[in-house]
Amino acid sequence: MTVFPLPPGSTIGILGGGQLGRMLAMAAARLGFDTAILTPEADSPAARVAARVIVADYADPAALRTLAGISQVITFEFENVPAAAAAELQRLGAEVAPATRALAVSQDRLEEKSFLNAAGIGTVGFAAVDSEADLLAAFQRLGPSLLLKTRRGGYDGKGQSWVRRSDDPAAALASLGNLPCIAEAPADFRREMAVIAARGRDGEIALYPLTESHHENGILRRTSAPAKGSPRLFAEAEKIATTLLIALEYVGVLGVELFEDDDGRLLVNEFAPRVHNTGHWTLDGCEVDQFEQHIRAVSGWPLGPTAAIHHVEMTNLLGEEAGAWEKLAREPETRVWLYGKRQALAGRKMGHVNRLSRLDGA
Amino acid sequence: MTVFPLPPGSTIGILGGGQLGRMLAMAAARLGFDTAILTPEADSPAARVAARVIVADYADPAALRTLAGISQVITFEFENVPAAAAAELQRLGAEVAPATRALAVSQDRLEEKSFLNAAGIGTVGFAAVDSEADLLAAFQRLGPSLLLKTRRGGYDGKGQSWVRRSDDPAAALASLGNLPCIAEAPADFRREMAVIAARGRDGEIALYPLTESHHENGILRRTSAPAKGSPRLFAEAEKIATTLLIALEYVGVLGVELFEDDDGRLLVNEFAPRVHNTGHWTLDGCEVDQFEQHIRAVSGWPLGPTAAIHHVEMTNLLGEEAGAWEKLAREPETRVWLYGKRQALAGRKMGHVNRLSRLDGA
Repeated sequence: MTVFPLPPGSTIGILGGGQLGRMLAMAAARLGFDTAILTPEADSPAARVAARVIVADYADPAALRTLAGISQVITFEFENVPAAAAAELQRLGAEVAPATRALAVSQDRLEEKSFLNAAGIGTVGFAAVDSEADLLAAFQRLGPSLLLKTRRGGYDGKGQSWVRRSDDPAAALASLGNLPCIAEAPADFRREMAVIAARGRDGEIALYPLTESHHENGILRRTSAPAKGSPRLFAEAEKIATTLLIALEYVGVLGVELFEDDDGRLLVNEFAPRVHNTGHWTLDGCEVDQFEQHIRAVSGWPLGPTAAIHHVEMTNLLGEEAGAWEKLAREPETRVWLYGKRQALAGRKMGHVNRLSRLDGA
Repeated sequence: MTVFPLPPGSTIGILGGGQLGRMLAMAAARLGFDTAILTPEADSPAARVAARVIVADYADPAALRTLAGISQVITFEFENVPAAAAAELQRLGAEVAPATRALAVSQDRLEEKSFLNAAGIGTVGFAAVDSEADLLAAFQRLGPSLLLKTRRGGYDGKGQSWVRRSDDPAAALASLGNLPCIAEAPADFRREMAVIAARGRDGEIALYPLTESHHENGILRRTSAPAKGSPRLFAEAEKIATTLLIALEYVGVLGVELFEDDDGRLLVNEFAPRVHNTGHWTLDGCEVDQFEQHIRAVSGWPLGPTAAIHHVEMTNLLGEEAGAWEKLAREPETRVWLYGKRQALAGRKMGHVNRLSRLDGA
């Protein structure tokens, strides 16, 4: 039986061995925790900074039993944890944070948007699409051009495509493997934005400043933080994030992707029940970064302060771009983060840089 | 044959598994490096954030061979590396930084002070003491009350004691095991200070702001940074650190402990050829911290900027003091660093806190 707050020296289990797990492990170490990583990947980025590593499939019952046996709390670095794994951890009586509810909701784009709307949070118009008839009905209701996405799986722009009313509906569905889909109306947005939000075990809430996101080919390219905006915009972001944290009975850090529409109102695009790429700027830009915040939250510690101390332009280093490390290390305003990935595949997130400048009004 | 600068993905070997090794390993990971720790301690603080761990005596030839085989550069977290280990690494053709010269000089307090004076850097008066006659001569020359220290070994106030002319000289020498000693005149100081200095492989030099140190029972208790002082004082600290880095042909981070005497002049107390406790404030207080700076220097990367971004009061958490983690985590101005040590022995450095406030003049 885990008692919170977890004392230093406790072990935090993490499902996933990528860069988010790596930065979580480093934050945990700062606070005196050990980490244990479960990942199917041999020689993963997170494993190389963790006290324990279990290389196995996420749903491997023996691996999950081992992880549950050595961890006082278990968290994850991605939302597509197999339901079987979550169920097995629950059966083992492991403390899992955030709770599997947030996972389940965010794993299904249709459930996610329905959940958001039910909580009073705006999204683009959407419709379930399981058949050609559904798709035709969606065009009727939502307009002549729709973004068709598989309900499950997919990230960084994968598992989605634009479809026009004039396209062959059967071909459109086939291009996404005839999987259950969601059709979304185009977002008429002025800016893409994001907010990183955290909730502690005692219900305490802490929000990071609102940021501006710039995507290319469906992959986050750049975050500019804190974003400029009106007090009304900030208040709306705060309301959305707070509502969502409470509706999900959330514990941990949550990444919320937003659209600012042409009327200056915010819609939620999607949320991720984990630390998030749009929060990497906090590593050098905020009092306590999103990784330490997540560790604090899941361990039952008080949340840390979230104010910005610098303006930051965060840029992802994709594929071969990380090869510019020597030049980047020479820029005095630039903080370099490299993830230790062995292969610089095209489009792969190899690292990021935070370029610092003086905060407006500081 | 190692080519510098080392690309990310290279392995940095570290002799020593304590908190300095731990924080070096975390800084290395941030830049995409792996670390390999050699330490005689099973389950050491550094091992739990490193990619590879070799548990063996520092002078174990097989262990050193393994470390040299997997590391592109080898560094250390303490200066009392056995000469046999340094010699063996040299024989193996390993790249070691800082070079063993700095180790050899700093391992012997008499050589250290002689070296400093020869470089034109002031110290307290001192004398070699190998016999009762030497000690009596030292009283004659340096005064009636002297600090007697073993030439080698000892840290945090261990291996030293005050001796008065009226004491029994034989007993004084026996209390330090009749080892070769150095006798030092009392330092008439107004403040204890420190400066963290770095030198890259290309000779580039970067200095951190001068700090004020507060010791208790020979152990650093608190660092206040940046210290207040006159431009003349800062220029003197800069001259001392620069002279020392060049005289040692140094590569890496060097910690220099200073006395400010009653005339406002600086004397060097001692230096440590490694990252240093008086530099822990840089983790939250400076643009690039001393750990990343050391990794940059030994890897042949350009040095990072060292300016202060906050005023910091760094306080060491000794023994049971680290038990206050929950209270400390609640202080908004406080950044908590815990080292993952299993046993809170009295006086043991278990962690530290950096308490931030606004920089004067910012």
